[in-house]
This record gives sequence, structure tokens and C-alpha cells, in this order.
Amino acid sequence: MEKTLALACELIRRPSVTPEDADCQALMAEHLEAIGFQCTDMPFGEVKNLWAERSGKGAERSGKGAERGSEGPIVVFAGHTDVVPTGPESQWQSPPFEPTLRDGLLYGRGAADMKGSLAAMIVACEEFVASHPEHRGRIGFLITSDEEGPAVNGTVKVVEALVDAGKAIDWCIVGEPSSTSSLGDVVKNGRRGSLGAVLTVRGIQGHIAYPHLADNPIHRALPALDALTREVWDEGNDFFPATSFQISNINGGTGATNVIPGEVEVVFNFRFSTEVTDTELRQRTETILDAHGLDYSIDWNLSGQAFLTPSGALVEAAVESIREVAGIETELSTAGGTSDGRFIAPTGTQVLELGPVNATIHKIDECVRADDLPRLAAMYRGILEKLLLD
Amino acid sequence: MEKTLALACELIRRPSVTPEDADCQALMAEHLEAIGFQCTDMPFGEVKNLWAERSGKGAERSGKGAERGSEGPIVVFAGHTDVVPTGPESQWQSPPFEPTLRDGLLYGRGAADMKGSLAAMIVACEEFVASHPEHRGRIGFLITSDEEGPAVNGTVKVVEALVDAGKAIDWCIVGEPSSTSSLGDVVKNGRRGSLGAVLTVRGIQGHIAYPHLADNPIHRALPALDALTREVWDEGNDFFPATSFQISNINGGTGATNVIPGEVEVVFNFRFSTEVTDTELRQRTETILDAHGLDYSIDWNLSGQAFLTPSGALVEAAVESIREVAGIETELSTAGGTSDGRFIAPTGTQVLELGPVNATIHKIDECVRADDLPRLAAMYRGILEKLLLD
Ligand SMILES: [Zn+2]
Ligand SMILES: [Zn+2]
Repeated sequence: MEKTLALACELIRRPSVTPEDADCQALMAEHLEAIGFQCTDMPFGEVKNLWAERSGKGAERSGKGAERGSEGPIVVFAGHTDVVPTGPESQWQSPPFEPTLRDGLLYGRGAADMKGSLAAMIVACEEFVASHPEHRGRIGFLITSDEEGPAVNGTVKVVEALVDAGKAIDWCIVGEPSSTSSLGDVVKNGRRGSLGAVLTVRGIQGHIAYPHLADNPIHRALPALDALTREVWDEGNDFFPATSFQISNINGGTGATNVIPGEVEVVFNFRFSTEVTDTELRQRTETILDAHGLDYSIDWNLSGQAFLTPSGALVEAAVESIREVAGIETELSTAGGTSDGRFIAPTGTQVLELGPVNATIHKIDECVRADDLPRLAAMYRGILEKLLLD
Repeated sequence: MEKTLALACELIRRPSVTPEDADCQALMAEHLEAIGFQCTDMPFGEVKNLWAERSGKGAERSGKGAERGSEGPIVVFAGHTDVVPTGPESQWQSPPFEPTLRDGLLYGRGAADMKGSLAAMIVACEEFVASHPEHRGRIGFLITSDEEGPAVNGTVKVVEALVDAGKAIDWCIVGEPSSTSSLGDVVKNGRRGSLGAVLTVRGIQGHIAYPHLADNPIHRALPALDALTREVWDEGNDFFPATSFQISNINGGTGATNVIPGEVEVVFNFRFSTEVTDTELRQRTETILDAHGLDYSIDWNLSGQAFLTPSGALVEAAVESIREVAGIETELSTAGGTSDGRFIAPTGTQVLELGPVNATIHKIDECVRADDLPRLAAMYRGILEKLLLD
């Protein structure tokens, strides 16, 4: 069996439902240490994280690229070993943790998101290091088992620790399944930010027959909420659509039909572009609420800052490498949900997401084209060659 | 013990928590049959109802008042034997179903709402019939054990049966505790109508990161709901405040913070004056919803039509009788919740509500002034004298 495929199967066989790692990181570390990586476990709470780093002999020489440390620039592969739950196993054509090849596809939970990518990263490094043991700069791995879960004790904590240790990441390739129809057709060069809030609007509870003794918080909230939905927060830019405001939940009322409730709770979320900051969004929201004279409290939750890597050596290397391996011109996109890139980019890192076709992720019968895994390894290796060879 | 008080105690001793009657109606029928009433049980479903009727000898003679039938006009006492649950019995100073006299007050569940009234009605009739056995017209009793509950198999069904039997009620005295500070200070000569609705606004569910693929029903509903809260439905009139629209419950959302829900449910209620009809309110509401282009469904529930007895022989008799017994000028009011008067008034009946002070109804330590019960009986008797004597 082809070695990328074989390693992906080994990883899939480990049932690492989030936040479990199921020794996936140990397997990865074993491969990495064999080619000169120094591996460090960085557990936070119950979450396992792995930091691995390899220095090429040519590190002290200066060269092209955004070098920061004395050891030369670092390319970091970032990813996660945890997978989402399988759903009803009986609905799978083959058991989700028994990797199975059928009609050129590799089936299994995590095949596309993102154990296939993890295998490709390692094989890329094995081949690159074998050919260029004295490469320029460094290669790193930042692997967590808390990406599909709360994402509290994973990448964000590792990045904090790296920053505290004075380690800066120049370039980061996240292995999230970015492709839509064929491998490499899309890479993500940014993501919108996500800012959530729980708004509680207070009134005065009372009997519906005596509305003058009550103060209906639902009635009070309506025009303010309507104003929030109509606000134009920005116009977006070349890379991002306009910032979007959406109410996901609204709940008020005692259940009784004859009681005016004392409060109403509204949960909403911004997906925001790089044209506004979360601070601006908070301030503008509260200005609108205040203008409507509401008695309210609000709990904000910043899930992730918007980030963008519009151009640079990493983008160029990825575009070129995809062209070489797949013969296509990739599309740069910032669409979709959040990824752990949001935790890495704010430190000034150039971040790109490149991974398999995402059509089946998080679904029953998750799968990836078997041929795509060595091709993905070749793309990753191409990026290393463009960034870490003189 | 004074006889009104004694009968009230006998009724309180029967634990008729809604929809139970606990033989209260049998006790009432026993008293009424002894003075020439014909009593008819009119059960519907599990609910016991009592209809009792007495014709005076002078029925065939014509006289003053709004006579309709060949037997002369009828005054009907309406009320309920069921009571609301006691709440935690340990919090009562004396057990709720052991009528207890303390400091001039009679304590017990139902003392004010409305077993005291039932006792006063019967004693009023006993005294009136003893003095005037050949009174003009007829006296009736319409008693249910389903007023505090769903009110589906109680007064509304008895009234339907009476209408089917060709029986019209000229005047109706409902024993609901109408007084606020002292006995007779307020009588209710009408009630607002109550019209409820459950509105479901539909959109298209989706992921919050892809709002263009979804259609947020909460956002859609906001301006329409705001318009409903701002609409001036009427200005009220001399007897009623303006019609009031209140949202009691609003619920939308899957609970997840990253999902735009497929629908939102809104429960609202009109308390309406006699200046609009429920049909007009439904039409105007749907016109506003349609104008906002909503995809919606709505379930209407008419709890009760508005009714009003602005003047007439019954109002005059009550005002005069209260003046004679208590030396006060009563106030006519339509404030407060609904009562079974809503089911009786639509047939063209003049309806008044007169009963004890309502400060403690539905509460722990419900009570009534012991002296008020014979005085209430005297008020009721006075009304009979003014309406049924030539
Ligand atoms: Zn993933
Ligand atoms: Zn009552």
C-alpha cells in the first residue's frame, strides 16, 4: 500500500473522537523523531497537543523569506487528530474506524478531516528531509486533539505558549479540507471572524390583563433588534463578503399565555470581515441598544478574529506547487466557517489552509480519493521546497 | 351561626378543587328544591353543572322589565363550585378545607371565590321566596364546576343547551368577587374580550456562516411584530380602555449558536374593548403580517367576546340595592380578567358581577369578612325584589 495511504489508515484506525487523541500524536511523533524532529507534548487540561520542530543544517545561513529567528524561518504544519462523532454506525457502509478502500476511495471517520492531511504532511517531510537534510530554516508541527470540540485547550493554548517562549511562526499550512471538487482547487487564505453575544433585555413581568403594570421586554427589544438586522456593518472587501449579523436564538415567555415575561434572551452572531474589528462591532451594537433605551445585559464571546493572508511567499509557493502537482490554478477563498488558523494568524503568521475535498466531512461514509493523499503530500513537499531551499 | 356563614362553611368543607364539585351542587340543590326550584343536572364530560329554575305564581301576569318568555322574565344567579388548588397546605394558618373564623374573617379555599357568594345567593332566595312566594317571573341558578379550569364543559355548554331549548336569560348576576376594598364598592358590568394566537413564521434553516443560503425567520418577523405592537387597535370607550396587544412568548432557534433556525413561534393576546370585534382583529393582524411578506401560519383562539351591560334594570337594581345595604355608591367597572359572564352575555343577557372583596382570591389564607356574607345575601335579595316584584 502507498505509504501516505497506509499512514492515513493507521490514524483512522485510532478512534479519536474529540477530544480524544487515541495515540495518534504518538504515532506521528514516532515518524517525526525518526527524521530528526524534536517532539514536545503540550497537554492542557485533558487535551493532548504536540509541538514538533526540526532544524535544517543551513539554518544559520540567511536566505529568502520572512526570517525572524536566529535559526531561520519556520514552516509549520497545523492540524488536529480529533474527529467528530460517527453518528449511527449502522448507517456506515463500512465501520467508521476500519479504514476501507472501495472504488478508489478511502472510507473512514477522519479520512478527509483531517487524518489524510496529517499523513500527507508527514510523508511530505519524510521525502523532503531525505532529499534535503540540510534544508534552510525549520519545519514545525502544531497538532491538537481539540479542534472539533470547544477549541479551548488546543491550538490557542499552544500558540500562547510559543509566544511566551519567544517563538514566532513565519508560515503555517493548516491541513483543513479546503478543496471543493478536485484536490487543490481551493485554498483558504483567510477566514471571517466570529463574534457571538447573548443579549438579555429586561422588562417588568405582569399579567396580560394589566399591561400598564408591566413592561413587555419583547416589545421593547423588537425595534432594537430590527435595527441591528438592518445595520450595514461594512461593505466587505476583495477577499471578504460584507459582515453578517444573524440572530440564532430568541426566547422569552413563561409558557403561560396570560403572562407578560420579565425578560427575553437573544443569541446572535457576527461573521465579520477584516474591514471591522470585534471592538467596533461591540461598540456599535451597544450604541444601537442604548439608543433604543433598553435595560439589558450582554455577554460577548469572540470565537475568532478575522484573518487574511492576501499574498506573500506562502501563497506563491502553494499556488505554484498546486499548479505543478495538479495542473490547475487554485482559487484563494475566505468562505466558510472558522478554523484553528484564527488562533495562529493574529501573531503575524502567514496562514494558508490546504487539504482534501471537503464534500463528505462530518458526514456518514466520510471518504477521500485514495490517489489524492500522495498528491497532497507532493503539494506539501513542493511548498517546503519553495520556502526552505535556497 | 348566621345561616349564610353556616352554608358557606358547609361548602368550603367540600374540597372541590377544579374540576371537582365534591357534592357542592347536591347541597345547593337540596336547599333550592326545598323552596320550589326544579333542579337539573347537566353534566358535560367530567364536569358537573346544575341548572335550577323556580317560577313565581305571578309569572303569567305582565309587568315591568325585559320579559321574553311566556313565564315572565328570569333572573339567573351564575357561579362555580370549583376552587383553585390550595398551594402548600402547610403555609395556611388553618387547613384550607376547614372553614375557620378568626378575628371576624372566615378563612378557607373558596371563601371569597366563590362559595361565600353561592351561600349568599341561596339565602337571598330563601328569604325572598319566604316573603314573596308568588313573585313575578322566574329565578334561575347556573352553576358549574369548571370555571377555574379549562372552562370548556361548564357554563359555555349549559348556555348552549339553554339556547337550544329556547330558554333566554334576561338578567344574570355572577357571584365573582368584584369588590376591591369594601363589599359592593365595585360591580363589573362587562369584561374585555380575550383573543389569543400562536403565530409561526417560517424561513429557511441554514448555517450561520452561509446566511445567503438561509432565510432567517426571526429577522423576517421583527418588523411585522414591531408593527403589531405599535398599531392603535381602537381608542377604547367610556367603559373600556383601548384594546391591548401583548406578546407573551417568543421562541425561535435550535439552541446551537451557529444555526439560523427554520421558524420562530410567537404567542400573543388581545384584550379588546367593545369597539372592535375579534373578526376585525384577526383581519387587521393578518393584513399587517401579509404586508410584511411573511410566510406564516396562525392559530387563533377566542377565549371570550367582550361584553358590556352599560345600563338597564339590572344595573339600576344593583346600584340601588348596594346603596340600601352598604350606604355606598358602587362603581361600574370592566377591568380585570375574564369570567364566565363572557359565555352568558352574547345571548343578549344583561350581566353583572357582584361578590365579595377579592384581595385574597387564589392565595394562601383566602378569606372573606364573615359579616359580608349576610350583607351580600341582602344585596342579592334586594336585586330580586327590584326586578321580580310589581
Ligand atoms: Zn478539521
Ligand atoms: Zn371565581
